[in-house]
Amino acid sequence: MKFCPECGAPVELKQPPDDNRERHVCTACATIHYQNPKMIVGAIPEWEDGRILLCKRAIEPRIGLWTLPAGFMENGETTPEAAARETREEANASIQVGELYSMFNIPYINQVYLLFRARLLDLEFFPGTESLEVALFHEHEIPWDQLAFRAVSMTLKDYFADRLAGRFQMHMGDLLAPMNNKP
Amino acid sequence: MKFCPECGAPVELKQPPDDNRERHVCTACATIHYQNPKMIVGAIPEWEDGRILLCKRAIEPRIGLWTLPAGFMENGETTPEAAARETREEANASIQVGELYSMFNIPYINQVYLLFRARLLDLEFFPGTESLEVALFHEHEIPWDQLAFRAVSMTLKDYFADRLAGRFQMHMGDLLAPMNNKP
Repeated sequence: MKFCPECGAPVELKQPPDDNRERHVCTACATIHYQNPKMIVGAIPEWEDGRILLCKRAIEPRIGLWTLPAGFMENGETTPEAAARETREEANASIQVGELYSMFNIPYINQVYLLFRARLLDLEFFPGTESLEVALFHEHEIPWDQLAFRAVSMTLKDYFADRLAGRFQMHMGDLLAPMNNKP
Repeated sequence: MKFCPECGAPVELKQPPDDNRERHVCTACATIHYQNPKMIVGAIPEWEDGRILLCKRAIEPRIGLWTLPAGFMENGETTPEAAARETREEANASIQVGELYSMFNIPYINQVYLLFRARLLDLEFFPGTESLEVALFHEHEIPWDQLAFRAVSMTLKDYFADRLAGRFQMHMGDLLAPMNNKP
């Protein structure tokens, strides 16, 4: 940020009174502009035969790799609504969103991933504009070396282990640095 | 937002290609400025005798009312780190952060509350600059009609019920409109 979104004057980085870190502060109108982490919200859509819906990314980052449907949460929606909207946008798929299943903190890119369990309601899905391909995978069919994000591969590993054990529990993890250029 | 934070030119609201909602787009450099929900992260600090730490707010909104320590998550931190930092800032209290306990979606103000279970590590707490008073409360001592936020009162009700039942489970809720001017 270089200019004040409210009045257009230059901003400077300085620590406001009663604050403990530097903020972008307008040099004219003195508005303090806070910057905060964003949520990536998505779903683990399971069909009635146990297969999981994945999308092959048509966009950067990680174009051509597979992921669970997920994306930036928008203003004016709840987290389950965000999960359902992203699944609709990326896969034209209808889901019933269940419990929060995993949370990954990715502080080096200021993101928090939230992935929900979900029931895929029908097989009428097809790729949205952000996907090259959309398909269902049994556990042994998952393209583990072609997954786009670590939050997705770790969530899927936990999910299949929990499903085998017969009890789902929420998982939380931190991704503190990129690995092999993979967020 | 009226001006582009990158170049200072006016922005206009319009729907970018391949998008499905209006964004603030710069009329000069064409940068798209997304606005997304923010996370309020906090803790339910429990002392070894079962009492819960609450803070009496010294700042608006809801000045003079009691709340769990919580605040806006900052860039560069994880959600448990945010919960511990807010508890330190508001109550000068040290906690060990445990599992995520409740999530409240508040879409009309573009916020998501995340409250974690936590163990209060000592009794050396005292009010931070944002608190008038900090104190421990047994369940029957909680000032239910003096709590600042519905996410806090609902979380505390669930927490005491779960503790009585001997098993904690995550709770999720939506607050879709203000009630009695209370977020």
